[in-house]
Amino acid sequence: MKRMNGRRVVITQTSAFMGKDLIELFGAEGADLLADDRDLTVPGAAEALIAEAGKVDVLVANLAAEQPRTSVLDTDDAIFRAMYEAMVYPLHRLVRAVLPQMIARRRGKIVVMGSASGLKGMPNYSAYGSARGAQLAYVQDVGTEVAPHSVQVNAIAQTFVENPTYFPPSYQATAEFKERIKGAPLGRLAHGWESAALALFLAGDESDFFVGQVFPFSGGWVTR
Amino acid sequence: MKRMNGRRVVITQTSAFMGKDLIELFGAEGADLLADDRDLTVPGAAEALIAEAGKVDVLVANLAAEQPRTSVLDTDDAIFRAMYEAMVYPLHRLVRAVLPQMIARRRGKIVVMGSASGLKGMPNYSAYGSARGAQLAYVQDVGTEVAPHSVQVNAIAQTFVENPTYFPPSYQATAEFKERIKGAPLGRLAHGWESAALALFLAGDESDFFVGQVFPFSGGWVTR
Amino acid sequence: MKRMNGRRVVITQTSAFMGKDLIELFGAEGADLLADDRDLTVPGAAEALIAEAGKVDVLVANLAAEQPRTSVLDTDDAIFRAMYEAMVYPLHRLVRAVLPQMIARRRGKIVVMGSASGLKGMPNYSAYGSARGAQLAYVQDVGTEVAPHSVQVNAIAQTFVENPTYFPPSYQATAEFKERIKGAPLGRLAHGWESAALALFLAGDESDFFVGQVFPFSGGWVTR
Amino acid sequence: MKRMNGRRVVITQTSAFMGKDLIELFGAEGADLLADDRDLTVPGAAEALIAEAGKVDVLVANLAAEQPRTSVLDTDDAIFRAMYEAMVYPLHRLVRAVLPQMIARRRGKIVVMGSASGLKGMPNYSAYGSARGAQLAYVQDVGTEVAPHSVQVNAIAQTFVENPTYFPPSYQATAEFKERIKGAPLGRLAHGWESAALALFLAGDESDFFVGQVFPFSGGWVTR
Repeated sequence: MKRMNGRRVVITQTSAFMGKDLIELFGAEGADLLADDRDLTVPGAAEALIAEAGKVDVLVANLAAEQPRTSVLDTDDAIFRAMYEAMVYPLHRLVRAVLPQMIARRRGKIVVMGSASGLKGMPNYSAYGSARGAQLAYVQDVGTEVAPHSVQVNAIAQTFVENPTYFPPSYQATAEFKERIKGAPLGRLAHGWESAALALFLAGDESDFFVGQVFPFSGGWVTR
Repeated sequence: MKRMNGRRVVITQTSAFMGKDLIELFGAEGADLLADDRDLTVPGAAEALIAEAGKVDVLVANLAAEQPRTSVLDTDDAIFRAMYEAMVYPLHRLVRAVLPQMIARRRGKIVVMGSASGLKGMPNYSAYGSARGAQLAYVQDVGTEVAPHSVQVNAIAQTFVENPTYFPPSYQATAEFKERIKGAPLGRLAHGWESAALALFLAGDESDFFVGQVFPFSGGWVTR
Repeated sequence: MKRMNGRRVVITQTSAFMGKDLIELFGAEGADLLADDRDLTVPGAAEALIAEAGKVDVLVANLAAEQPRTSVLDTDDAIFRAMYEAMVYPLHRLVRAVLPQMIARRRGKIVVMGSASGLKGMPNYSAYGSARGAQLAYVQDVGTEVAPHSVQVNAIAQTFVENPTYFPPSYQATAEFKERIKGAPLGRLAHGWESAALALFLAGDESDFFVGQVFPFSGGWVTR
Repeated sequence: MKRMNGRRVVITQTSAFMGKDLIELFGAEGADLLADDRDLTVPGAAEALIAEAGKVDVLVANLAAEQPRTSVLDTDDAIFRAMYEAMVYPLHRLVRAVLPQMIARRRGKIVVMGSASGLKGMPNYSAYGSARGAQLAYVQDVGTEVAPHSVQVNAIAQTFVENPTYFPPSYQATAEFKERIKGAPLGRLAHGWESAALALFLAGDESDFFVGQVFPFSGGWVTR
């Protein structure tokens, strides 16, 4: 039996980050997919997406913005705010829009595709990393709050995963990357489907006991 | 297709802790099971078990000792050491015995059934909780060490899971338990199979990117 | 010898949160204080404050906003954003403004008065808690980035500390508070000066080896 | 005024680890020192030490064993157990012996000189690192348990600190060390007195609000 048979699944910002791999795996597992790529920084866009989706069993909040890689001194207000406009505020709007129906049914899953950079200190990550950290703290709070309603909200805090936004082939060819990957005990990038498989686990019935939890997914980088 | 088809799986100390649920789920998923209940505190017992098992694809290190629930003042040396004799030293002997074949094949999984009490501070847990903490630190170190050999070692740090050792029906009936369960945002015990499902996930190919990682499994207790 | 003799110390938003206790202790320890209460949400205000301060040895970033205590469903965009406007964006502007002189001198301390709510999951904390989480992730990133310049950036993640913003006498009289304080093993609120003493430790020479670190200060609440 | 004036302070295993620096700083701060170097693996030794000490205001549990640096496969039972015999069981015996008088007086401090290796995964650390992890879990449990008695038990989880046991000049001259220190954002070893200064902070009245807490002290290594 396919693991998402009959489940209505919304995946956001599909052209970026883990969109492609999420669509492939959830689709292969029989999900009734709404794979959407609208700009969620636009007021009302998140709410409209959820309204169009109808019944939503699973929301996979896949939100990304390019890491500016500026030093803290060179991170102007526009750069800094842009991270929050792209990754934090839309997350709240999506979650707030989809939770009422899940709470009413006492059933629903929200999986946030987040970043391990929210967990550790990294140079030139002040804007991107702090916004990713905000996502993770948000998931802990909301997951704890809605747990009594039998709705599960969790996050993946990933790094070293193949994807077009943060680890494109061009970046993999750089000396910087080759040095950086040494920081992962496993010594390789994850395939995109491996991160999608974790998202699938968190979207399925097997993981009902997890609430408000952050799952590092990093080839050992977070722990070492 | 069953998820453990053709996999040789060793589960230890089966009469205690998660033994029964692990046997049921791994068995139902087609594992070639060696479910063993010998006393692993005996010198040589761990090594003999692995030798008898032959090829081992997955070791599920299920080790338990009754929580003495003594105050730190009342925890004599015998009580204290007994926790390490039952849960820490056998873990090392099992892991050391099984790793060579896994490293040689560049393939293998070790899943340690641990406790969330190793992560947080709890009164009257000095002996039990510190031994559980030793298990988790051990998994981080060994998992990091053998990651380059394509062998994955991870741990579940669980609490509030139905099992005959720590949450038997008699304990669930106590006022202490009813107060304590309020500390889990989800407000219920996990069924034993839910923990076994996490072990299955960590024993399967989907989780190859996790190494040396500790997975809290607690209905939100660890996070809140 | 007084511990802040001859040190120029800037303390922000002094009418809120830990302002009063910080002024008292740093003043008593001989600091050359610029205790400021201007509205730092105003564009240019953070930069103007640092410019007026001249040489800054220590920046104590004391930023606060009232916790709205709304459920995630009732947290509208204005409430949500207000947390970031008050606590996250001004933090970045202060840090960015003061770092160049510290880096040039290879000497300087930034202490962020943050909240333990950024570390754990709490119901009705989605807006406040996630903004506090953003602060902590920011400190990790910036602290790591500027460590090679001999500038130390660290954060206190406090709760259960007497202060007029979050634990005023009126709140201490409520049944909610009396229930909540049971969650702190120590069973009491910290006096304001105790948190200020930690800030003093992090502002002094004794703590030079700490960088990008978050210090829970919670009477044991974070650990238990 | 000296910060340890009139305080009876016991420091253990003084020939190893942080012994020398602890003696110097606590002595300079006016402590009534019992600096002891007996072998605490001997039955009864810990209890005898505390009995000889009389009234103890502060116990600094400085326990060390040489890191065997063996791979998990080469870590035989004797090596493995030796770590626990040297660092874990004596810790419990010291703490159990000294707590009754502290609880009776509702006043006392225990500071455990631990290791950051208990927090992260490291190759060839299975024995040493897991024993250090046991110490940290122990401190969390005991610190939480005795917090209501106004006794504070905390731990330092240090690395990259000059000391004769783990970072002697001979090791600092190796290529391995020069590579490894790059992992600390601060890029230098701490002087021994800096770690002693943290122990002093945790032994003094300023830190009464900390209980059962682990303080990473690593030049940013734990966070990055």
